[in-house]
Amino acid sequence: MHHEDKKFKVGVLGATGTVGQRFISLLAEHPYFVIHALGASQRSAGKKYPQAATWKQVKPIPSAVREMVVLECKPEHFAECSVVFSGLDADVAGDIEAAFRAAELSVFSNAKNFRRDPNVPLIVPLINTSHLGMIPQQQSLHAPPLKKGFIVTNANCSTTAFVVPLAALEKAFGPIESCIITTMQAISGAGYPGLPSLDILDNVVPYISGEEEKIEWETLKILGGISEDDGVKAFDMHSRHPLRISASCNRVPVIEGHTETVSVRFARRPPPSPQQVREALVAFTSDAYALGCPSAPRHTVFVHEEPDRPQPRLDRDFQNGAGVCVGRVRQCRVLDIKFVAMANNVAIGAATSSIINAEFAVLKGLITP
Amino acid sequence: MHHEDKKFKVGVLGATGTVGQRFISLLAEHPYFVIHALGASQRSAGKKYPQAATWKQVKPIPSAVREMVVLECKPEHFAECSVVFSGLDADVAGDIEAAFRAAELSVFSNAKNFRRDPNVPLIVPLINTSHLGMIPQQQSLHAPPLKKGFIVTNANCSTTAFVVPLAALEKAFGPIESCIITTMQAISGAGYPGLPSLDILDNVVPYISGEEEKIEWETLKILGGISEDDGVKAFDMHSRHPLRISASCNRVPVIEGHTETVSVRFARRPPPSPQQVREALVAFTSDAYALGCPSAPRHTVFVHEEPDRPQPRLDRDFQNGAGVCVGRVRQCRVLDIKFVAMANNVAIGAATSSIINAEFAVLKGLITP
Amino acid sequence: MHHEDKKFKVGVLGATGTVGQRFISLLAEHPYFVIHALGASQRSAGKKYPQAATWKQVKPIPSAVREMVVLECKPEHFAECSVVFSGLDADVAGDIEAAFRAAELSVFSNAKNFRRDPNVPLIVPLINTSHLGMIPQQQSLHAPPLKKGFIVTNANCSTTAFVVPLAALEKAFGPIESCIITTMQAISGAGYPGLPSLDILDNVVPYISGEEEKIEWETLKILGGISEDDGVKAFDMHSRHPLRISASCNRVPVIEGHTETVSVRFARRPPPSPQQVREALVAFTSDAYALGCPSAPRHTVFVHEEPDRPQPRLDRDFQNGAGVCVGRVRQCRVLDIKFVAMANNVAIGAATSSIINAEFAVLKGLITP
Amino acid sequence: MHHEDKKFKVGVLGATGTVGQRFISLLAEHPYFVIHALGASQRSAGKKYPQAATWKQVKPIPSAVREMVVLECKPEHFAECSVVFSGLDADVAGDIEAAFRAAELSVFSNAKNFRRDPNVPLIVPLINTSHLGMIPQQQSLHAPPLKKGFIVTNANCSTTAFVVPLAALEKAFGPIESCIITTMQAISGAGYPGLPSLDILDNVVPYISGEEEKIEWETLKILGGISEDDGVKAFDMHSRHPLRISASCNRVPVIEGHTETVSVRFARRPPPSPQQVREALVAFTSDAYALGCPSAPRHTVFVHEEPDRPQPRLDRDFQNGAGVCVGRVRQCRVLDIKFVAMANNVAIGAATSSIINAEFAVLKGLITP
Repeated sequence: MHHEDKKFKVGVLGATGTVGQRFISLLAEHPYFVIHALGASQRSAGKKYPQAATWKQVKPIPSAVREMVVLECKPEHFAECSVVFSGLDADVAGDIEAAFRAAELSVFSNAKNFRRDPNVPLIVPLINTSHLGMIPQQQSLHAPPLKKGFIVTNANCSTTAFVVPLAALEKAFGPIESCIITTMQAISGAGYPGLPSLDILDNVVPYISGEEEKIEWETLKILGGISEDDGVKAFDMHSRHPLRISASCNRVPVIEGHTETVSVRFARRPPPSPQQVREALVAFTSDAYALGCPSAPRHTVFVHEEPDRPQPRLDRDFQNGAGVCVGRVRQCRVLDIKFVAMANNVAIGAATSSIINAEFAVLKGLITP
Repeated sequence: MHHEDKKFKVGVLGATGTVGQRFISLLAEHPYFVIHALGASQRSAGKKYPQAATWKQVKPIPSAVREMVVLECKPEHFAECSVVFSGLDADVAGDIEAAFRAAELSVFSNAKNFRRDPNVPLIVPLINTSHLGMIPQQQSLHAPPLKKGFIVTNANCSTTAFVVPLAALEKAFGPIESCIITTMQAISGAGYPGLPSLDILDNVVPYISGEEEKIEWETLKILGGISEDDGVKAFDMHSRHPLRISASCNRVPVIEGHTETVSVRFARRPPPSPQQVREALVAFTSDAYALGCPSAPRHTVFVHEEPDRPQPRLDRDFQNGAGVCVGRVRQCRVLDIKFVAMANNVAIGAATSSIINAEFAVLKGLITP
Repeated sequence: MHHEDKKFKVGVLGATGTVGQRFISLLAEHPYFVIHALGASQRSAGKKYPQAATWKQVKPIPSAVREMVVLECKPEHFAECSVVFSGLDADVAGDIEAAFRAAELSVFSNAKNFRRDPNVPLIVPLINTSHLGMIPQQQSLHAPPLKKGFIVTNANCSTTAFVVPLAALEKAFGPIESCIITTMQAISGAGYPGLPSLDILDNVVPYISGEEEKIEWETLKILGGISEDDGVKAFDMHSRHPLRISASCNRVPVIEGHTETVSVRFARRPPPSPQQVREALVAFTSDAYALGCPSAPRHTVFVHEEPDRPQPRLDRDFQNGAGVCVGRVRQCRVLDIKFVAMANNVAIGAATSSIINAEFAVLKGLITP
Repeated sequence: MHHEDKKFKVGVLGATGTVGQRFISLLAEHPYFVIHALGASQRSAGKKYPQAATWKQVKPIPSAVREMVVLECKPEHFAECSVVFSGLDADVAGDIEAAFRAAELSVFSNAKNFRRDPNVPLIVPLINTSHLGMIPQQQSLHAPPLKKGFIVTNANCSTTAFVVPLAALEKAFGPIESCIITTMQAISGAGYPGLPSLDILDNVVPYISGEEEKIEWETLKILGGISEDDGVKAFDMHSRHPLRISASCNRVPVIEGHTETVSVRFARRPPPSPQQVREALVAFTSDAYALGCPSAPRHTVFVHEEPDRPQPRLDRDFQNGAGVCVGRVRQCRVLDIKFVAMANNVAIGAATSSIINAEFAVLKGLITP
């Protein structure tokens, strides 16, 4: 079967919110995902989409969506959807996504609720699509067991920016032992209305609730493998090579694009040189791109040579924000190597990740039209 | 002698620039320093100050300065000045400051030119005023030897923010072994015109030319002691306890106030707890304040308990920007302790440091009216 | 009686909000108003002020207020207050302020609720303090009649900036016939949380709900006089010389300080020249300053000569933000004269106005300790 | 002849500057203009384009240009170009553009130097392409007379935003009598480096040197017609119906997109209603679009119905920034009608205008491959 020949009906949950709007913008131009159903809160249900949403994207509302009526987030309204993308807020995502899975729907979620579930993959599509291998167990352990329904989550936007280059480096040079990250995160990462302007204009807020813990935990799940014991699979949390992560998270007056400074120490002695690191990052290609996911970027990690790049305003739209940019690869006097990473938090840091994950699942036969 | 009874005539070099304007604003309200002479480039010389300077401070030009005529930066015009503050640009500061010293003037400079000179103290007045002890050697090694003339420099603004808490921690817990810093620096640190607005609005620039090297080098000179060998003194660069510093410097769209994330590892095992660190920072008092320098802040390091402080916009004017603010003291999973430091780059990070240094020199009898 | 010898106990309603915080900051340094009681919502009542308020001012919470317990906004808790300042939100200000007046309290309100009341003065203290003359009628028409209680309101922040120079011009040159204003308003005018940062960073929002109507209506009440017919007083809404006002209101990414372009046409032909207008603005002095209100600015209208001033960031703190700045006075090719006005929306545009109004009422004997 | 079948070689002068970069970005995707030669200052000449330019566009340097070598701005290097676009700075544009014209080259300039030349058309391509009719006279009056060479200029970016809706209104309702405009202009209008960030962050600068005069003068030339007397053509400067324009220009912290408030008075009594104005704006279509210029927008004036639009951040990229957005059409209490206009200053306000002008000239046979 050639998936390009087939179209897949997809649904979007939380369709009126910031992430939902981004899903709609991206899916409106997708080669084979076709928006079929939009779900939002009771307050929005029954309205046409332009009336229900306060559209905040630079591109206008896609014409295919202008006449669609928003539905409540109930599985029966999405029964025809091969894929359901969730941009729901965390306070409602848990119950709704569980109900959708139980109704045999395939859910690709940007919410945090299931990220720590031991049977739910947490996938950054440029690096650990192999974690889709956990889905059969997720389905068989469900009560009752599922045939088609599952949940796949993607990572927090601030994790995505540095974990992609870390994966590339581990592939090339073996385990990383420790990593110190400082993030300078865009306001769009907080959703809408998000940060009051009085808090962030001419300011830095050196704190984002829960963010550092998310980063420190998620990285282990994403970079780790899947162990198997007596036929039971488990995410190994990088436990064969303990990895210490320390993050300091900050909000800065930038609209889109998280910029991060990253210092790493490798287990291997001597560590690779900055030049070797650069070459490894350039050489790294995602399976998603190699296998033909249409939304996967050609350059998984684009390495800048200019000393003052990447910059969020200049680089966040490169490759539609689907890749990660790295620059300033150099020695760290305390650990081994340091660099700057930048990723578009609303693209590869959110909706784009879910979409590539779904594209990969299609390629692997986990989803059928 | 009660220094409060006496007034000291002071001069300001580079009086029309950003740092010079700040010197003027601060000195206009000083209890015993009285602005006597203003120096600037040939282009400005001969004009009244308001005509020569493009005044960019929030406070208006002090009335005492409105009628002053700007002079060329020649020592003979400043012969009556007990203290000369230099806010000169680096491209001219070297020759001019040297000439002023040779003319037996006491120069307190914010420029970088003499910071690495082996006989010139590099002083952050809240922590290493003891380095004034190098002045006699600076004078005696000069050709011809000097009686009164000397140069004292203060640190780069981004160094100041974190080196003050580091000094407090070394005093309480012994040597620090390594330190990783990420800075988020205000645009005013680049002077005027400085950064084009097109480069920084809605953006982060992850690079400031030469800044990381300055930080990594200056810290060693400031935190180190003075060794003596055969009667010759030398800055020991913290060499008895090698200290590794790794900095990543970024420019963010903030007008004033450098915010920095700092992770430190102590030599001592086990390291102090976050609570012990907080207490040591609170307990630390500068000699400058203890001895009565009028511009020294009561709280050398103010420790915030709120999780989201310090913030540059809310905290940069606390104590007239003369202290350093610290918050979020917590464990670091890679090194020992991490925290956020924030300092006003144009106050304690620049002109205020020079002024406190001069106040301390007055107290020590190095300067006479 | 010398009012300076006496202290007046004052209360602040809406003490935890943006305007309430500004009242507290200003009153903490007032020569004779002493903060005695703080009122806020039920949710805050019973808590110490620092716990109840999310303090967002650059100056720390005044020490006199740190231990005060927030009260509910009930008149019995404020019985000892000679003056009650209200920074309440419009959705609750109407009932609460009415109840306070009925309880014989003197209320100076920044809320909009009573601005259009035919017996409540709407006073910009730099220009129409004579409207306090309406208070006896407000008291006598109350049921039951009041001896001490009354309400005085101050104007919307965007009105204040241009109405002060308009009053100065009418005083010098007679009636103004029409006026076109475009505002560029700071985000702090919308309170906290106010505008989401995603809406205003790198943006202009050319709309502020209800603002243009407020400007167009309030101006007539403020610049008009008080007519009397059969012993009944009424605000004449400038009706003897009909005045047409047209405003276009915009929000811009500025923290404090509303900047406005203003074009006016005078009834008088020929109209005054730009130079005459400048001189009239400079010459204008408020009664509040002339009579000694301590918070009234020396320069009611400060006229800038530089071509690029006033600017909100550089000029908003001049005279503690209590005056109005004007610049670029020049001919208008369509009307007669145009200029730029700038006023600090949280100072003279809000809390400072209420305080000067109360100071003036003290001078006039309307308030006793 | 079908122009689509033919390609036209084009040159770009000032290729390394802000406007030049925009020309290159746009031309790289053009259906029939092909970049053939790039000119810049002597300092850049001889370098490959990526080495000569500090590229500041969000899109990467087009691949077709990466290997091109920058030339000096001498006509002989551009002899093969059918069209030469000029993004030169005003201090050099005059001589260079004159030399290119004298060498029989067709110059479409964004510089101001020839805008006031009585034989050079000043064309906003959405409204007055008929002014191309002045070119034969420009050629014949040249010494020596020219066969192919000419200069066409486009308008200042702040003029473009409001003059397009004005033209639409004059077409529908007859002459406009007076117009008051306040601009809120983006920083990119000042080029690079342009405004220092310290001048504009958290600020409004109510002055742009020379801008108000440009607006007031250019509007008359653009909206006026061409009179003919004894066979000599002249721009009539709207003199048959004198039009008074009064502009107040401000710089605001916005990256791209000029927002303007506009009040107009019509000669016709009674004036049209807001609804009639909206309909006339919607109905207006440019000749450039009607005749098939590929860069002309479908909606010459897009009229927003939402009360808070247009906004520069959300609307500046609509139609690639080639149209003008209008919103908030309503009555003006002083003149007749007021509205908000917004145009992308670097697209239709600069390079896009030149390109559409050239496309139109191709259609009219003024340019041949």
